[in-house]
Amino acid sequence: MHFTFTSEPRTDDGLVERDFSLGGVPGILWTPAGLADDPDAAPAPLILQGHPGGLEAMRPRLAARARRSAVDGHASAALELPGGGERSRIPELEAARAELRAAVLAGGAVPDGVVDRLVLPLVDLAVPELRSAMDALLALPGIGGPVGYSGGIVGIGIRLAVVEPRLAAVGFFAGSYVPLSLFEEARRISIPVHVLLQWDDEGNDRRQALDLFDAFGSAEKTLQANLGGHRGVPAYAGEDAARFFARHLVAGAEPLSGPAAG
Amino acid sequence: MHFTFTSEPRTDDGLVERDFSLGGVPGILWTPAGLADDPDAAPAPLILQGHPGGLEAMRPRLAARARRSAVDGHASAALELPGGGERSRIPELEAARAELRAAVLAGGAVPDGVVDRLVLPLVDLAVPELRSAMDALLALPGIGGPVGYSGGIVGIGIRLAVVEPRLAAVGFFAGSYVPLSLFEEARRISIPVHVLLQWDDEGNDRRQALDLFDAFGSAEKTLQANLGGHRGVPAYAGEDAARFFARHLVAGAEPLSGPAAG
Repeated sequence: MHFTFTSEPRTDDGLVERDFSLGGVPGILWTPAGLADDPDAAPAPLILQGHPGGLEAMRPRLAARARRSAVDGHASAALELPGGGERSRIPELEAARAELRAAVLAGGAVPDGVVDRLVLPLVDLAVPELRSAMDALLALPGIGGPVGYSGGIVGIGIRLAVVEPRLAAVGFFAGSYVPLSLFEEARRISIPVHVLLQWDDEGNDRRQALDLFDAFGSAEKTLQANLGGHRGVPAYAGEDAARFFARHLVAGAEPLSGPAAG
Repeated sequence: MHFTFTSEPRTDDGLVERDFSLGGVPGILWTPAGLADDPDAAPAPLILQGHPGGLEAMRPRLAARARRSAVDGHASAALELPGGGERSRIPELEAARAELRAAVLAGGAVPDGVVDRLVLPLVDLAVPELRSAMDALLALPGIGGPVGYSGGIVGIGIRLAVVEPRLAAVGFFAGSYVPLSLFEEARRISIPVHVLLQWDDEGNDRRQALDLFDAFGSAEKTLQANLGGHRGVPAYAGEDAARFFARHLVAGAEPLSGPAAG
């Protein structure tokens, strides 16, 4: 897919932000200021910042995470989700979202079928786009592997960790619906996993989050649960997540381990 | 109880280790080297290092934790448990330990009665001794509040956090038997809590550990679960626990919050 920058670089407090288009899909790249100044420096590891869709609304929060990652010398990027933000709506996803809203309003557990109809197509559509974004972004001067994926739709992080050998570490924020079929994929993940769980997250099935953590096949996995709701992640939890990526995304290093076979 | 040092100070790699006796109960005090050199410095916060009993066997591991805490300017101390190490055995505890061993060998869940008969008397005996140790240690030059309690028998940390207003933070290492009656006390804890859980700890009831974390009444509580068995705590988990105490045990500061009323 054709990659082109769609804005001039904006530098603010040590962070350079630049919008891009990947085959018409809008994205944002954040790099540490001065990244390109040292031609001898090892290329910066890249963190793909996940989000729920609607990139413009998420820009301030994603930029704040990117600024923290830049302290560790990491570049960050975010790509609009299929059917999200300014992108054309996808009828099947819109219908599934309406089903989900109705199920949530009706109370009780959301039927697996509804979760599958919403999340599985989104994962199938988003993961190839994220891999294409990795192709384009890793080809830019000053940016290289290893690559991390942080937050966003849990299912997208699971699928990406299974299929993408350039991914060296994945951080999840428990709290989105996860199709049962993706639990099987989670068992095949072998790269280090960090899970943030807000213990009192109103929109989160705590039991399912713990079961998913149990399912990850990784030899290194950490669950950090903190008191509070979905928006109440304490600052030190963000610091711990950043340290997780700093441990595993070392400039010039190969991924610690690739995805499990199959 | 009469406090006296029973050894000369031994300095090794920035840590001063000194044995003491508190009314005949052996203990060890570790302080950052150079602590006494600056009379204007705020007194060092104190971390009571918990352990399963048998202080001499634990000395190397406790010293290693104390060395890490000294980096943050914290003093550390450990006191032999009632009936532990060189102390005279306590018949009721010995009988309960034999019961526990038999129950574990028989397989299946350990009856609540057995846990109660072992842990509750130990908590009742150990907590007043630890509070006396705080009286004596906080009176030493260069050592002051706030005080933390780290690891050891979970029940002792729970009781101490409820009854001891000088305690500002408590770190638990999930993996010891917890009487159900102490879950009620856990709900009354209001100081910050950090819980380390080894996800595959053979000697640990994961479900009970999660229920206990849920029970803590604290406004700030963090559970960090890592893959591995009881002895497999990763180095970064020790670092995160140290950062927890560094956040809450600030030299010269008052405890963030006392125990809840009642």
